[in-house]
Amino acid sequence: MQSLTAAQYFFVYNAFSFTFATMAAATVFLWLGRSQVGRAYRTALTISGLVTAIAAYHYWRIFESWGAAFEVRDGIVTVTGLAFNDAYRYVDWLLTVPLLLIELVLVMRLSRSETFTKATRLGLAAALMIVLGYPGEIADDNGTRALWGTLSTIPFLYIVYELFVGLGDAIKRQPVEARGLVKTARWITFASWGFYPIVYMVPYTSFSGAATETALQIGYTVADIVAKAGLGVLIYMIAVRKSEIEYGEAEPVAMRGQRPVPEV
Amino acid sequence: MQSLTAAQYFFVYNAFSFTFATMAAATVFLWLGRSQVGRAYRTALTISGLVTAIAAYHYWRIFESWGAAFEVRDGIVTVTGLAFNDAYRYVDWLLTVPLLLIELVLVMRLSRSETFTKATRLGLAAALMIVLGYPGEIADDNGTRALWGTLSTIPFLYIVYELFVGLGDAIKRQPVEARGLVKTARWITFASWGFYPIVYMVPYTSFSGAATETALQIGYTVADIVAKAGLGVLIYMIAVRKSEIEYGEAEPVAMRGQRPVPEV
Repeated sequence: MQSLTAAQYFFVYNAFSFTFATMAAATVFLWLGRSQVGRAYRTALTISGLVTAIAAYHYWRIFESWGAAFEVRDGIVTVTGLAFNDAYRYVDWLLTVPLLLIELVLVMRLSRSETFTKATRLGLAAALMIVLGYPGEIADDNGTRALWGTLSTIPFLYIVYELFVGLGDAIKRQPVEARGLVKTARWITFASWGFYPIVYMVPYTSFSGAATETALQIGYTVADIVAKAGLGVLIYMIAVRKSEIEYGEAEPVAMRGQRPVPEV
Repeated sequence: MQSLTAAQYFFVYNAFSFTFATMAAATVFLWLGRSQVGRAYRTALTISGLVTAIAAYHYWRIFESWGAAFEVRDGIVTVTGLAFNDAYRYVDWLLTVPLLLIELVLVMRLSRSETFTKATRLGLAAALMIVLGYPGEIADDNGTRALWGTLSTIPFLYIVYELFVGLGDAIKRQPVEARGLVKTARWITFASWGFYPIVYMVPYTSFSGAATETALQIGYTVADIVAKAGLGVLIYMIAVRKSEIEYGEAEPVAMRGQRPVPEV
């Protein structure tokens, strides 16, 4: 790779550190939030926090790997010869992408059988999408890359179909106060995921070198933050809102018509 | 940079270590405190603890980076050539400064729509302020620094306006027992934040060299402790006080008019 400037190196370095902190913070937020939602929504928050926790772990690793691959001394970047292990991303996605779809299904609180069917189908399709993309990612020639990339698109299109058609009815059954948020969650999933194939196709173009590498790393990082931490916060908001509707107001005793606090 | 004395090096080194310990301790205090406040105030404490947790992480990193940038042997400080990555501060602020404003809004317990509007506006303005400041921070010439610094002041002034005018009504609606504390929290936010632009402007002056660098690092560190851990403790006090009013007394039976403790 054409050598990075110190500014490019540190931009990626700081973005990785930032993302670790964001994912770790989102994890704690989601897990502490479990006590603020009804029982039916706790698993959705557990899973949402797992996604960000797994991502935090992988960003820690990616950060370490980036730091080990380069040395910056007196403002000059040199490669150390150690590989920058970008495969952490695929390993991460293999775990988190199915879980992301499962958290979305769980927060909708469908019937048990519907939850099971949708979560299984979407989860498997997501895993298949990642597995099929990987041989293309590590291929040296664009032909192989395009072949696996195209195969990987098939489960992706199936997921999009399930999100917008399969789950359409279920979304109409969501309480009106939460429906908008659920739709936003679906859109965030679709839009942030749409970014990954764009990045995947960059090597087809004539773009290459340090600037492209920097842009790719930053791009994946932003997409990960939106798709994981951003979606997590939305899932939390949906869970809180639906809990209030289904489990009753969270209002304290003293505020309900100012009834006296009972003597203990 | 003009070389540091060993005393300067260790002053900063120990200040970073101290701040890590303070932020980590504040985090545990705030998260454990969640069980002592009413449900409506738990998110405020979750977020306050996230701010100090994120700061603890970054002080750990800054501490490590400071240690790697210099070597002290037999009382002589030499530079290793590895960069001291001061950008951790900006990365930290990008996450924590919006959250600080959100914790302040949350503890006021406004209506849902008002909470959402204020938190979004203030959070975005805060992020914008940090993003606009950064190009100036890394610029080599004072002209560029002044340009971005001035642009960054626009969202800052908007935040000040929102805190003192926009939230003025909401503060008047706070229970009288908590109003003073909320006002103090607002002032602490304003006063501690006011310190950062002063530090930002130091390179405009003829001050430079090791003494200035030491003063800047200590200054940012003190401001961070006040703005994050200090504000966090205030938020906790407000949450406890308001919980007592809204959720009923937290006083133990034995203290209410000295009634006898029942035999177990």
